[in-house]
Amino acid sequence: MAEAGSLIRRLVASVTGATLDMTRSKDARRADRLARVLRTLISEKGEATGAALARRSLTMYAHLGAEGRRRFFEILARDFSPDRQTVLEAAQAWHRDPSPANHAALQRFVEPPRQEVFRRMNMAPGGTAALVGLRNALLDELKANPHLAVVDQDLTHLLGSWFNRGFLELRRIDWRTPAVTLEKLIAYEAVHQIHGFPDLKRRLENDRRCFGFFHPALADEPLIFVEVAFVDELPAAVGPILAPESTVGDPRRAKCAVFYSITSCQSGLRGISFGNFLIKQVAADLHAELPNLKIFATLSPIPGFRKWLQRRGVKDAALRSVVDSGTLPPEELRAPLESLASHYLAREWEGTQALDPVARFHLGNGARLERVNWLADVTPKGLAQSFGLMVNYVYDLGDVERNHEDYVKRHRVVSSSTVDRAASEAGKLLT
Amino acid sequence: MAEAGSLIRRLVASVTGATLDMTRSKDARRADRLARVLRTLISEKGEATGAALARRSLTMYAHLGAEGRRRFFEILARDFSPDRQTVLEAAQAWHRDPSPANHAALQRFVEPPRQEVFRRMNMAPGGTAALVGLRNALLDELKANPHLAVVDQDLTHLLGSWFNRGFLELRRIDWRTPAVTLEKLIAYEAVHQIHGFPDLKRRLENDRRCFGFFHPALADEPLIFVEVAFVDELPAAVGPILAPESTVGDPRRAKCAVFYSITSCQSGLRGISFGNFLIKQVAADLHAELPNLKIFATLSPIPGFRKWLQRRGVKDAALRSVVDSGTLPPEELRAPLESLASHYLAREWEGTQALDPVARFHLGNGARLERVNWLADVTPKGLAQSFGLMVNYVYDLGDVERNHEDYVKRHRVVSSSTVDRAASEAGKLLT
Amino acid sequence: MAEAGSLIRRLVASVTGATLDMTRSKDARRADRLARVLRTLISEKGEATGAALARRSLTMYAHLGAEGRRRFFEILARDFSPDRQTVLEAAQAWHRDPSPANHAALQRFVEPPRQEVFRRMNMAPGGTAALVGLRNALLDELKANPHLAVVDQDLTHLLGSWFNRGFLELRRIDWRTPAVTLEKLIAYEAVHQIHGFPDLKRRLENDRRCFGFFHPALADEPLIFVEVAFVDELPAAVGPILAPESTVGDPRRAKCAVFYSITSCQSGLRGISFGNFLIKQVAADLHAELPNLKIFATLSPIPGFRKWLQRRGVKDAALRSVVDSGTLPPEELRAPLESLASHYLAREWEGTQALDPVARFHLGNGARLERVNWLADVTPKGLAQSFGLMVNYVYDLGDVERNHEDYVKRHRVVSSSTVDRAASEAGKLLT
Amino acid sequence: MAEAGSLIRRLVASVTGATLDMTRSKDARRADRLARVLRTLISEKGEATGAALARRSLTMYAHLGAEGRRRFFEILARDFSPDRQTVLEAAQAWHRDPSPANHAALQRFVEPPRQEVFRRMNMAPGGTAALVGLRNALLDELKANPHLAVVDQDLTHLLGSWFNRGFLELRRIDWRTPAVTLEKLIAYEAVHQIHGFPDLKRRLENDRRCFGFFHPALADEPLIFVEVAFVDELPAAVGPILAPESTVGDPRRAKCAVFYSITSCQSGLRGISFGNFLIKQVAADLHAELPNLKIFATLSPIPGFRKWLQRRGVKDAALRSVVDSGTLPPEELRAPLESLASHYLAREWEGTQALDPVARFHLGNGARLERVNWLADVTPKGLAQSFGLMVNYVYDLGDVERNHEDYVKRHRVVSSSTVDRAASEAGKLLT
Repeated sequence: MAEAGSLIRRLVASVTGATLDMTRSKDARRADRLARVLRTLISEKGEATGAALARRSLTMYAHLGAEGRRRFFEILARDFSPDRQTVLEAAQAWHRDPSPANHAALQRFVEPPRQEVFRRMNMAPGGTAALVGLRNALLDELKANPHLAVVDQDLTHLLGSWFNRGFLELRRIDWRTPAVTLEKLIAYEAVHQIHGFPDLKRRLENDRRCFGFFHPALADEPLIFVEVAFVDELPAAVGPILAPESTVGDPRRAKCAVFYSITSCQSGLRGISFGNFLIKQVAADLHAELPNLKIFATLSPIPGFRKWLQRRGVKDAALRSVVDSGTLPPEELRAPLESLASHYLAREWEGTQALDPVARFHLGNGARLERVNWLADVTPKGLAQSFGLMVNYVYDLGDVERNHEDYVKRHRVVSSSTVDRAASEAGKLLT
Repeated sequence: MAEAGSLIRRLVASVTGATLDMTRSKDARRADRLARVLRTLISEKGEATGAALARRSLTMYAHLGAEGRRRFFEILARDFSPDRQTVLEAAQAWHRDPSPANHAALQRFVEPPRQEVFRRMNMAPGGTAALVGLRNALLDELKANPHLAVVDQDLTHLLGSWFNRGFLELRRIDWRTPAVTLEKLIAYEAVHQIHGFPDLKRRLENDRRCFGFFHPALADEPLIFVEVAFVDELPAAVGPILAPESTVGDPRRAKCAVFYSITSCQSGLRGISFGNFLIKQVAADLHAELPNLKIFATLSPIPGFRKWLQRRGVKDAALRSVVDSGTLPPEELRAPLESLASHYLAREWEGTQALDPVARFHLGNGARLERVNWLADVTPKGLAQSFGLMVNYVYDLGDVERNHEDYVKRHRVVSSSTVDRAASEAGKLLT
Repeated sequence: MAEAGSLIRRLVASVTGATLDMTRSKDARRADRLARVLRTLISEKGEATGAALARRSLTMYAHLGAEGRRRFFEILARDFSPDRQTVLEAAQAWHRDPSPANHAALQRFVEPPRQEVFRRMNMAPGGTAALVGLRNALLDELKANPHLAVVDQDLTHLLGSWFNRGFLELRRIDWRTPAVTLEKLIAYEAVHQIHGFPDLKRRLENDRRCFGFFHPALADEPLIFVEVAFVDELPAAVGPILAPESTVGDPRRAKCAVFYSITSCQSGLRGISFGNFLIKQVAADLHAELPNLKIFATLSPIPGFRKWLQRRGVKDAALRSVVDSGTLPPEELRAPLESLASHYLAREWEGTQALDPVARFHLGNGARLERVNWLADVTPKGLAQSFGLMVNYVYDLGDVERNHEDYVKRHRVVSSSTVDRAASEAGKLLT
Repeated sequence: MAEAGSLIRRLVASVTGATLDMTRSKDARRADRLARVLRTLISEKGEATGAALARRSLTMYAHLGAEGRRRFFEILARDFSPDRQTVLEAAQAWHRDPSPANHAALQRFVEPPRQEVFRRMNMAPGGTAALVGLRNALLDELKANPHLAVVDQDLTHLLGSWFNRGFLELRRIDWRTPAVTLEKLIAYEAVHQIHGFPDLKRRLENDRRCFGFFHPALADEPLIFVEVAFVDELPAAVGPILAPESTVGDPRRAKCAVFYSITSCQSGLRGISFGNFLIKQVAADLHAELPNLKIFATLSPIPGFRKWLQRRGVKDAALRSVVDSGTLPPEELRAPLESLASHYLAREWEGTQALDPVARFHLGNGARLERVNWLADVTPKGLAQSFGLMVNYVYDLGDVERNHEDYVKRHRVVSSSTVDRAASEAGKLLT
């Protein structure tokens, strides 16, 4: 039935060249009603009853189905855009006479009305969470409907401003944290899966730390969190860190703080970056609290390594077979694979950025590429991505600025001499 | 010496028509250095060390003197504006082809770079408070330098977005509130002065309430607060409410909640309105908590009444003498003054707004003009403003929307029949 | 004198082959050292360094093994008791002359010095928790060494005074409660096992409640907690309440609050009763919050029913076979088993107390015996204890006092007419 | 009228030799009713309704007037005491056979039932505060009625146990502390009066500290608090510390933490000592936080100095005149007065205790008598007590135990060589 109705609607639309209200589905009509409420909300009339209207609009949005949401996004893109002619004239006026009045007019006319829509929706209780959810739904829709990008541009701009670092709170997460937050860590952890509360508990013991950024309007929801382990030296494998039964060490005797997992939690905030701030703040805080810590480093996956090798091709047959299968590599492939990984991380670029996405993040933050580790993550995922290899990026707070500049301005990756040497051997291995 | 230097600088400037770097004062050079730091901060290079640079910029701003601040605002207006030519071209391109890419380009180019400056400064601890302070300083500067309005437009836009109702927390303020917040109430109270902590304590007893909006980034600082008294009936005078020695009543027996003082605290947030939300939220909350409350009303000053009468002129000599002197009016002037006040509040407009600023606020919020009160505030200030008259505005939550529409759309003030009748008598009293 | 006694002890020991200092184990010598520290702690000398000594004594106690603890308890019983002769003389003096001075002396001499020992140990951080643990260890020891009861009497007296209702905090436990507390619920729940955090989460949803008593010195440790379900009517089976996948109901539509599990958490506080206060306080609070709740009742196990029937004997062969096997009873045994359960709960006494321990608790609290439920708990435990039968006790806050008096003074159980009738049928079923 | 009734009652009593119920005042009859409620409360019947009865008893006590309270204390002393004969027999039984059962019986019978009364009253909300108030009233009554001491002994014993250090919370008090607590500091401060909130604010700035002990059952009420100033060296006068307009120093540059005021707040807890713990804990905490602090010392009054000199008599006429008048002493009396103060503090004893009460407290805590300061407190109070002299006691945490032992066991005051020398000169000045 629904499909038939939808078919009829499309037929009618193709004939009349317009969507007729009568043939529209219930869900689409809901979207239209929501749009009307939002028009009132941003009008002068909406001022006296703004809070009530904002609450109503959130409820209406929450009741939209997939079709209604799509229609709503379309309306936002079409009807809540700036007026092209007015904008052009305002730009011309300001170009002629850059007076404050012309500046004000230009800024007012060029700002899409949907920005005010979002600001008004945000006024209702739960508004911020709803808008983060709305952007998540919008991102899904974007793949099939790239013209909706204008809505996303506006929403991203607003969310970026609202989730400014100055409004975020860095909180330690431990076993005294409310369960409502802890269960989110379990759900969100993207790097090394957490197997329920008992597993999580080990990661919050005295020789581990977990910190997250929180926003006041999303009280129990971490935006991003980082997991840290205190160990004796730069770690070469992730297994011992994750082992749930390991003995709890003494943080005041550790030499190295390993950032072994960083997870962004809100897909509706994709593209708004916090990780940079989080790692540096946590490193600085830990340094102040535990002066015994001398090394701040990651133990990171190399997610694009095998895929790159598959594309690039290798000469050696044994190597090629491992590249194809993604199985545990034999010991004799250690040197060649470490060479190739070093090369991949330090010398393969995509435009002005390192090719590997994790490398891009840490090198862009000013970290140093320190060491490639053999059989560091032999889980199926670890083997499939990078033959079990992992890498340490070192955060030396004194060098971060210089490293960052080398990376950004000179497109140069700062790496240890071992990595450099290994990378030099890679050329002859590739086809 | 400093004056001599300043003189020379001005001389040189008048001759060369430009400020020379060498002759610039220490303070002005500090402003230049700050501008350089901010340019780095918004560049790509600023990403790795954004937090540190943001902190530094705040410190540098804090050390500017009056001259340095003025120069800094000038630089923000001149060097951190959008590029006119680029904006025009982007507007033309988007006018021709409203593609998402052109939309994104237009939005990017039209946004003044100083907005990004402010967002980056906000990332440092204390950033939000510093920007509110910066706007306060800017508002002072604006009177003599109206061309700086462009900077204020951008800052106001950002602050308005950041202090969105959805990010504000409504908190009850009572005798358990930290002293650091209470002392601010004493400092800020603008309507009826608070004479130290003991006086404040009476205003926080069980038959009084105080609520404020707070922003998470300005933890102990109220943005606006409202003082409420629970009384038996619509109050006709403010003296009994303020009397420090009065007996504490039982809130569960009161019939009327009087909003007898509303104070905006942050002059750096001037023009960003919270009062509207505050009153309605507090009325709704009190209504839920204390169902015995039947009337929600203000007891408000009439700040512009006497000034208007002075301008307008009255026929009666006795009345004229009181209008001139601003002294306690004799009882026989009660009827004429109540008439004139009713007329002034209900029928005098400035464009589409009520003439009296307090009336404008409450009527715009959808309140009803209820009753003019004789000898309601006989302090020198009360006499000087309005011959001791005050007025009640009633918030009837069910009627707020309709009243607001009458006011906004039909330019009609909803008022009680008593006020209406009294207002009709005013014509014959005026010259 | 003291030294002479010590000499004699050592002589006797050397002859009898009993405990020689030199032959004493390391653990026992640790206990001796602890006793010496405690003697200093309660001396005048201990005043200046009381905090340090108290901390040291806790550490020393924590390092005792089983033998050391036993020896330590022995020393407490033997060497930290009042002096018999002094007490007798003080009692005689006060008997002759009940002056305040004689009263003070009597009270001082009769109080066992170990009470002061416990009070001083309590001064160290973690002291209260350590003493609760110490009593737990002591209770274990008591079975084999009943003469240690004197130590337990003193400790119980102190703990009873310290855990006075006035010092306890009633807290709601929900999904925002720290995990450190929630994991204790899982560990402690004694009535209906909680299968990990996901199971617990269902018990903390909106149509369930959980409350516990907490003591400020044992911050995260519940002393006792009660689990409540909001349902439509007096429940006849526990399965639906425990079902992890059940739909979450609306608490504002429920008629009945069921206390379906009450668990005491601290075995070191055995005999110090909180349950009485907890149930009544929670019932009163829920009544105020949710006026729709009309019935406050339990759904309780009948732990001693089958054991009693086994002892007592039944005539009917089918019944006897079920009594012997503890298997699921067939429907035709429903009437006889309900009769017997009603009789057991309402009419079987042990001295002045109901025979069934759960009945004793609720009837002593003033609850009414309302209904016996067939196949209410068909878990192996439920069948083994009471053939799957459970019982509702109703808390009618207005009748609690009268019911309690009937129970305590007239040894009469207040029960519903259905239970009464069923109980009358039981006689002919018993051998 | 009231007086007439009272007269008649006394007349009747003098004739009949007994108080007749009918002639008793309303207030006294209230006391009798309260006693009846309390008898029920400690009976078995009181268990089911303990919470309600406890609440009622508190209300009843709160409504007693002076006469009713006196009568209530009399009843507590007379009717809620142990039974003399039973106690004697229990003591004899236990003397013969020190079995656990006999021990338990003895302890049960010897404990005055009023202890259980107090424990039950404590169960009601506000119970602890009420009992602290009750003891305060009792202490007043005690002067005229020393036989009530038995009630006080029991109450003191209980309160001492309940306010055990292990249950107290050390809290920093600063300008973020709720006003409800701060106003208590102003009300209670006993050493150097606080002149309202602005004066208090200076004492809570960054170069000052204030800490108090709090009990969970008396949430906002400090039990005792200490005020600390961070200064460059051992201070010789209190004026600069109290000056409200002084510049705020940097705590990280200070060498000396001065405890310049210690105030016990609850007169109902008189005799239960916390000061000892407070000073040492604060000293230890500050030492850990600010390693730059090298000296922990007091600047203390010498409250008994002049009074002692008046009693003792001095030879020199000029000195005698100052001793008589309590006026500002001339400079030439500096040496003799410092000698006499050194002698008074270091060598004058009352039994096993230093004669000066403040000296007794600090020396008993293990402090060292360091320096007598000339013109250190020239307020009228300072002159009247001790001619403006004050004294520094130094807390050297490493020496506290040894100093305390010297004081307690050898009755020796540990003092600096300057004080020693000065004290030796005192003999020849005294008559």
